Parts: sequence; structure tokens; C-alpha cells
Amino acid sequence: MKYLYLLGATGSIGVQTLDIVRANSDDFKIIAIAANKNIVKVREIIEEFSPEFVSVGYERDAIELQKSFPNISFGYGEKGLIAAATYGSIKNDLVINAVVGSAGLAPTIQAIQKGRNIALANKETLVIGGELITKLIKKHNVSLIPIDSEHSAIMQCINGEETSSIKRIIITASGGSFRDLTRNELKNVTVKDALKHPNWSMGSKITIDSATMMNKGLEVIEAHYLFGVDYDKIETVLHKESVIHSLVEFHDTSIIAHLGNPDMRVPINYALHYPKRTSYSGKSLDFIQLGSLHFEELSVTRFPLLKMAIEAGKSKGLNPTTLNAANEASVGLFLNGKISFIQIEEIIQECLNAFDNDLDVTLDKIMKRDIEVKNYVLLKYS
Amino acid sequence: MKYLYLLGATGSIGVQTLDIVRANSDDFKIIAIAANKNIVKVREIIEEFSPEFVSVGYERDAIELQKSFPNISFGYGEKGLIAAATYGSIKNDLVINAVVGSAGLAPTIQAIQKGRNIALANKETLVIGGELITKLIKKHNVSLIPIDSEHSAIMQCINGEETSSIKRIIITASGGSFRDLTRNELKNVTVKDALKHPNWSMGSKITIDSATMMNKGLEVIEAHYLFGVDYDKIETVLHKESVIHSLVEFHDTSIIAHLGNPDMRVPINYALHYPKRTSYSGKSLDFIQLGSLHFEELSVTRFPLLKMAIEAGKSKGLNPTTLNAANEASVGLFLNGKISFIQIEEIIQECLNAFDNDLDVTLDKIMKRDIEVKNYVLLKYS
Repeated sequence: MKYLYLLGATGSIGVQTLDIVRANSDDFKIIAIAANKNIVKVREIIEEFSPEFVSVGYERDAIELQKSFPNISFGYGEKGLIAAATYGSIKNDLVINAVVGSAGLAPTIQAIQKGRNIALANKETLVIGGELITKLIKKHNVSLIPIDSEHSAIMQCINGEETSSIKRIIITASGGSFRDLTRNELKNVTVKDALKHPNWSMGSKITIDSATMMNKGLEVIEAHYLFGVDYDKIETVLHKESVIHSLVEFHDTSIIAHLGNPDMRVPINYALHYPKRTSYSGKSLDFIQLGSLHFEELSVTRFPLLKMAIEAGKSKGLNPTTLNAANEASVGLFLNGKISFIQIEEIIQECLNAFDNDLDVTLDKIMKRDIEVKNYVLLKYS
Repeated sequence: MKYLYLLGATGSIGVQTLDIVRANSDDFKIIAIAANKNIVKVREIIEEFSPEFVSVGYERDAIELQKSFPNISFGYGEKGLIAAATYGSIKNDLVINAVVGSAGLAPTIQAIQKGRNIALANKETLVIGGELITKLIKKHNVSLIPIDSEHSAIMQCINGEETSSIKRIIITASGGSFRDLTRNELKNVTVKDALKHPNWSMGSKITIDSATMMNKGLEVIEAHYLFGVDYDKIETVLHKESVIHSLVEFHDTSIIAHLGNPDMRVPINYALHYPKRTSYSGKSLDFIQLGSLHFEELSVTRFPLLKMAIEAGKSKGLNPTTLNAANEASVGLFLNGKISFIQIEEIIQECLNAFDNDLDVTLDKIMKRDIEVKNYVLLKYS
């Protein structure tokens, strides 16, 4: 039995994580959950999974829930999120971090310091906190298992082989909602258009990040920290079918790839059961029906945010935080109709110019920079 | 330092094995070689690699060679082949069996009984001797590492994961020289046409086997014994680019694939260095240049030998030997212009009808049946 602490329980990854828990009720027990505003769903999860601790975004919701469930402990806000990640003292436990955005960093750090293994869907944890997290992981000897389909794929391709034998990692990209549009055609796209991802059903933030290709840039940074591989060994390729989830070439020119239907429950199932591969009832890929797979160059002229993100990653320090905060804020503004799609990348470039880098990173500095950049964007553009 | 015993040293796999040995001279030492009639090449190999023991096909060649190389021991024929596989008593050794046809079985058995690890390019060893070999491998606790590109791929995809977690193995097939011809168009094809494999540069026997699809059938049987997976979990797919060398689906719907340019030195390099993956200077696959990969059904109507081979494999006993011997003999007759391409499959079917199965297999029975079937075919058709 593995004991689970699920952060972001009502989001897309959270709900699919609960699907896997439901299908493997002998293997898992939900001890704590954290969510934000979707209290209807929080109530459903409590009824079904009987967690011991629940955190929500706001105090008023926590108070209301406490009345309905007197035997459960409740928390709220940032502190509640951390409390959910660090609740209790049971061993053989796993924190599933499916929080959206920079808010995911602090609870990851606290959970690692408690000696807990982490299943990570919150890529911002590594994008903005990669330098801190890699040190902590070593110090506390815990596992960090990716839930991103690309990184789960890479982990399964490496499968214990030595990092020194890796020649390159190739991360595939579907191209997102606007893959087939020119940059000129991007000027008048709508939020509704942007939210139509061709292959994956995901939350709105990551769907926009896929359309701007920021998501792929963040994934390159994430891969760098997860697998300890230099940036010059991490490539990207446009692969519109999203069937090859990523590939690893070794120094003997052997390439190992992970393939499957686009279904986030596969990497979730893998991360939850890790290190044991356990069956999942999903649909097998049908190669005859599929017919063909395609590869194209992922152009940094067409997708400038890809290059911008990788450059920010390479420059280390607070630059990845500036990039990520500017992206979170501007994607929020785009989703609320305040700015155009093309302005997302303009605002991120503006922030990278406006905020100096600082190579000496601490959690406090990261969180301070995160707020500063978001405030800068919101004040100027909302 | 690993000590090598190379059977089939002058053939396609043998020559490419020597390329790998040459490029890794600190890792390997050739102790013994066996070849057949290409004495010019045998002399070159002796000059370059200084083996202690050399076996050739015929006594007269052995006598001539002995005059030129008085410090080397020579053998010839079947006994010489076995002597090359079992020569000396050095530890950390590896027999590379790149013999063509059923002649590869006896030396494999003797080498295993001596406690030697085997790198196997001779698929007939497992096709006709699979039941015997799997028992011996366990008994003597040796490694059997495939050199076939498909089986090397499958081994790398499994990479230590449990056999019970394998949902299916998918072996890819290029389609061979006559992939795009109808069965009617096969009637008048020439030997020259048949030897033009679209992707791989290989020996003539296996190139014909690729065109008839017998090769894929033999590979299914080989995979069954190598990986201990039931026949109903082994599939084949037509993949004309030969870039995906094979795939393994696990019970969580994750598919792991091995990709690369078609270059037999990659699986040879892997087998020779196993269990350590060591660098190879070959060309990396360029996905942008590649553009796309295709998959089609491998039709058993178009390629009846695929089904015939798998059925023979499933029926066990001496049927696989009958199938293989009929194939070796008829491919030889085709290469010598005695029969038409389409007669190959007719003769194999005829032999499977003419010779009874016997489920109680021994090496003697296998070798006896092998000769009986070959004689039957040669007497009737040459």
C-alpha cells in the first residue's frame, strides 16, 4: 500500500490520478488532497476517497467544508498546500504535485525535506527551482518521478542506463493548436481556438503553453534537471501525431523511444506504481490504423518562445523564474481576453529585458521575483 | 578484455564483427575463427587478428594454411567448427555464431555446455533447436545475446523488465526485395532482383528469406525462445523504412521501440560489449531528413511462408527443422537457378506434408531430419 498526497486534486492531472487510484484501490490510499476553488469536486473526492487532510484555496471554503466533514482536518491557501504535502508521518508515501504554476515549488521542497518521494506534474518546480531541487533530492535521497508524458517517456527509455551513455534526448512536440498557422495568421486567433489542442486533453494553461511552444521550452529545462543532461544534448522535433512521446539516443546510435496513445493516465499510472510497471486498461496503439508518423523541424523562428525559454534555462539563476512568471501572468491575461495571443511572447521578452538575472538562487528570491514579475505584467497589461 | 570465438568469420556478420573488434582492440581479442571456403579472406583475418585456432570448410585448405602459419592450430569441417567454438579454456569469453543455416546448432550447443556466452546471429540455432537451447542456457547459466537487429532491438526494449509485463512484441519487416510486387508478379522474378534488399546489406540466404518473408517467420520463432513469450503475443508489421527495428508493448500500454539507421554493426557492437552499452561511431538517425515512418499490415496471403513458419514453430518438435531444412535447400536451388522464386514456398509446404512431426526432439534427431529433408529436396528438384 502506497500513501498518497495529491496536490491539485481537482485539475486535469488530479482527476486522472484519482482514476488510477480508483482502478488500483488495493495499491493506494489517499491521505491528503489540496485543491483551489472547485469545492463541488472537493466534496465528491472527500466522499469517495476519505482523505484525512484537505486543503483548499480560501478560508471560507475550508470553514464550510469543516461543518460537513467534522472528522477531517482542513487547511487553506499556501500554508494549507504545504500542510497537505507534509501531512502525517506515514512511510512508503508519494506526493503527487499537479499544482499549476510556481505555487508548486514550495510544497515540493517541503515534501522532499520530509523525505517524501515526488511524482511531478508541476514542471515549474524544476523550471524555476531546478538548482535547488536537484541538491535537495540528493541530500534527502528521494525519488522524483515525472508525470509529464515526455519526461515519463524519457525516463522509461533510459530505464537505468548510465547518463554518460546518452548522446541526445529528443523531445517531441505536437505543435499545439496553431501548428499549421503562419506567424501572421497568429495575430487574430481567439482563446477558444487556442484551447483546441489537436491531440491531448489538458488544462487551459498548458494548452496555451503548447500553442506558444513555451511548454516545450519548459520541458527542455525540466529534462535538463531531471536527467542531468546538458542543454546541447536536448533536442526537440515536431511530431504531429503525439504518438512517440520522446526518444533517447545512446552513444552507440541506438535510439529508444516510448510510444502510445495520448493518454495522461499512462504516465500517471507509471509514476504512481514506480518502480514497478503495473497494468493499465487503456487502449493499445494500432500501428496499421495509424499508418504513418511524421517529423518536422520545430522552427525557433515560428516559435520564438522555444528559444527564449531554453536561453533562460541555460542562463540559470532567476532568469527562468522571470520567464515563467511573465508567462503565467500573460497566459492568464490572454485567457481573460486582456491581451492578444502574440503579446504573450512580447511580454515575456520585455520582462527578461526588464529584470536582471541573479545567479545566487534561494527559494525566497525565487518567490519574490515571481511576484514582482507577475505584478509588473498585471499592472501594465490588465 | 573479452575473448572471442567467431564462427562464420568471412560472412557478412563475421566481417562486420571484425570491424567492431578492430575499433575496440582494447576490449576484444580474437582467439578462434571458423570460416568455409573464402580462404583469401581467412588469410587476411589471420594476418590482422592472429587467432590461435582456425577452422575452414575443407581439409585441403586447412593443410595449405598450416604451411603458411605453422604456429596456428587448424581444423576443418563440422568438427573444426565445433573445435573453434570450444577451443581453449579462457574465461570471460564469447562465441559469436554467425554461421549460415542449421550447421550453427551443434557448435552453439557445445559452446553452451562448455559454459560460454553466445552472441547469436545464426537464427536457425533457435528455430530448430529452441527447445534444447533454452534448457541448456538455464542449466549452464550462460547468456544468449541476439545479433539479429530485431531481436537486439527487442532485448534493448525489454531492458530487464519482467517478461510477465510484456503485452506483445511487434517485429517490424521491411518487406524485402519484392515488397511492392503482387503474387502474380512474383512468378518471373530473377535471382538478381531477389538479392536487391531495399534497406539492409546482408548475405544472400537471408536476403532471399526476407523476400519470401520466411525470415520474419523464423524471427517470430527465435523471439519466442529468446524472450519466453507466447506466440499469440508476437506480432509482425510491415515497416518499409527499417528504422524502427522492433517494439515491445507492456501491460500498461507503454510501447518501447528501438530505432536507428539500418547498420548491423549496431547490434553486433551491443552484443559484443553486453551488458555494457559502448559507443559506436555510426551515423545518428536524422528525423527531419527521414520525415515519416510507415506501417502496413504484413499480409499472410501475400506472404504465406510467414504463416507457415509460425505454424511450424507452434507445432514444435521436428516441424521447425523440416521447415528450415526445406527452406535452406530450396533457397540454395533458387540461388543456383534450379527453381523459381515461387517454388520455394511450394517445396516447403510439400516437405511439411511429407515429413511427420516428432515432439520428442534431440540433437541427433534434428540433424538427421535436417539431412533427410535437404536430400529429399535436392534429389527431386536439382
